[in-house]
Amino acid sequence: MNDTTFAVLGTGGIGRRTLEVSQHKDGLTPVAACDRHGVAIDFDGLDVDELLEATEGNIDSGPQSTTSRDDDSRDETLETDGGATATPGVKQHGENAGVVASEQARPSEDSIQDIIDHGDGIDAVLLALPNYEHDFIPRVADRFLEGGYSGVMVDVLKRSRVIGMLDDRTEAFEDAGITFVCGAGATPGLLTGAAALAAQSFVEIESVDIWWGVGLKSGYEDNRGTVREDIAHLPEYDIETARELSEEEIEAIIDDHDGVIEFTDMEHADDVLLERAGICDAEDVTVGGILDVEHDEKPTTTTVSVTGTTFDGETGTNTFELDDATSMAANVNGPAIGYLKTGVRRNRSGEYGVFGPAELMPGF
Amino acid sequence: MNDTTFAVLGTGGIGRRTLEVSQHKDGLTPVAACDRHGVAIDFDGLDVDELLEATEGNIDSGPQSTTSRDDDSRDETLETDGGATATPGVKQHGENAGVVASEQARPSEDSIQDIIDHGDGIDAVLLALPNYEHDFIPRVADRFLEGGYSGVMVDVLKRSRVIGMLDDRTEAFEDAGITFVCGAGATPGLLTGAAALAAQSFVEIESVDIWWGVGLKSGYEDNRGTVREDIAHLPEYDIETARELSEEEIEAIIDDHDGVIEFTDMEHADDVLLERAGICDAEDVTVGGILDVEHDEKPTTTTVSVTGTTFDGETGTNTFELDDATSMAANVNGPAIGYLKTGVRRNRSGEYGVFGPAELMPGF
Repeated sequence: MNDTTFAVLGTGGIGRRTLEVSQHKDGLTPVAACDRHGVAIDFDGLDVDELLEATEGNIDSGPQSTTSRDDDSRDETLETDGGATATPGVKQHGENAGVVASEQARPSEDSIQDIIDHGDGIDAVLLALPNYEHDFIPRVADRFLEGGYSGVMVDVLKRSRVIGMLDDRTEAFEDAGITFVCGAGATPGLLTGAAALAAQSFVEIESVDIWWGVGLKSGYEDNRGTVREDIAHLPEYDIETARELSEEEIEAIIDDHDGVIEFTDMEHADDVLLERAGICDAEDVTVGGILDVEHDEKPTTTTVSVTGTTFDGETGTNTFELDDATSMAANVNGPAIGYLKTGVRRNRSGEYGVFGPAELMPGF
Repeated sequence: MNDTTFAVLGTGGIGRRTLEVSQHKDGLTPVAACDRHGVAIDFDGLDVDELLEATEGNIDSGPQSTTSRDDDSRDETLETDGGATATPGVKQHGENAGVVASEQARPSEDSIQDIIDHGDGIDAVLLALPNYEHDFIPRVADRFLEGGYSGVMVDVLKRSRVIGMLDDRTEAFEDAGITFVCGAGATPGLLTGAAALAAQSFVEIESVDIWWGVGLKSGYEDNRGTVREDIAHLPEYDIETARELSEEEIEAIIDDHDGVIEFTDMEHADDVLLERAGICDAEDVTVGGILDVEHDEKPTTTTVSVTGTTFDGETGTNTFELDDATSMAANVNGPAIGYLKTGVRRNRSGEYGVFGPAELMPGF
């Protein structure tokens, strides 16, 4: 396959790490990155080291700041999943918050539009944006549709209900020549794919249990958006109330749980993605896990268990386990890039519409 | 996706079980099955129950019988991986050996040609044929090419060197509109796919270790061809010497090992299939396992271990384990049908050539 160019929307933890991981992959060139402050575009390839170094500790913040921006009826301001808090000793660049701290970037009033306007040279766009509103990713997709983009879009979203919103746009994607790969991170993503594969031994699936462990001490600053999204999965919260939490309130919730939060029955899109791939019913899928923000060690081993019945009447459980040494970042960004690569292959052969990770084997 | 019709070449253990498993899948219609004695074709769908029942214990035998057939320069006689030995108490039908024992079948001098001649109505062909000669599958593919077939071909071959022979035919497949999915059983196949998926956490793969356990007591009669092929992997044998073994000699080898044979460093195509998918070097892949023909319990748990380094410098091992309760048949035939389904999807979108299981997520 020829060289693949890609853009990253959002330069929080996921966006930054995707840029970093892409340097390890042949034939993959990051040509654009943006946040709501600005955009960096270079079709010879971004200098990822400079961009990451210049913006380190300078990551734009959570949802509160959305309201600080004058905007039209669209409010696809670019949040990232990083934290804005100035960490002592880490350089800050005053007005040049976020990506603009890089010498490759320039300020922009509408950085998404800048990316869309350069879409002809971009094979794939990774949406590394948090989902404080359920329709945020679908609305960003609408902007790319309106802007005449034709290519691959990849998100690492988590919420089940978003998949339906994307499915509603299937025809528009097909008409536009867009191959949209949804839920292409760790879970849904890598673990959904593993479940789909493990299911092949069976003719009837009884249950799919996805159980994750994340240790995020050193990665916490970079992944505040992810933590906020996780909190929205706790029974006492939802996506709206989590969006309104101040950073102090989030810290208080974490303290209340002694830094270790267990999640059960999460609304994770693994369920609908497995159902749409014909693997099992969504209701047979459960997702839970444990997040520890005070240790880097995982509090539990990430495991996918698929229980089913074989054609010859035996019941068994196939399992997929990630080594505790593999970080959340490794398990999100490697698969995201792998699915991006496969999405480009599908796109080049003329397959458009919405695809989930249970339908595609990630590349590389 | 619309309904998919398929044919099975060979009605030994793998062919028979594929027909059986297909009955559990929606939208998949078996329309043809053949062995070297005859062919059954019915575009309304074969009566699988009748075919399996009528031919039970009546499976055609190993390679010796090849020479008993007058043939032209081509010798793609249809061996199966079953055993011909008349089992006491199991019905035999005299001259109607093999598939012809079914009332749906008729004798044929060239049953492969019969299938090719009906190729217009067959979306996919599963080659459930043993590989007593390395170029047997490629030569069968040549016949389909010569016969003007356009569709999907799926094999469950094992030997690394065969992949290169198929790759040599890529251009011919592309011109003909054939999507050839190779190595689409358990290993290579399901386990190769699992290795490719498990590798997504890493930017550098150190090793892929595939270790299988098969307990084949009750399935032994149906899988003599598979056992013979496995014996060819022992250090003292190769594919030529194994082909010449009489059934008594095979029994003697099994007895020498007390019914439990361990294999190491097998020439299994998982290596080249992972290399061609860009996952790792072929030399970093090892395949071994234990076959027990005197128990149905697996002598060891089938496990894929992928060891690599993450982008953030950690080394870890991701693992994929099949439950001991899942039989070899379940793990070969489920994936074979899953890859067949995905092959049809690729074919319908115009992607032709040779594909391995590390490149495709199996369907269903």
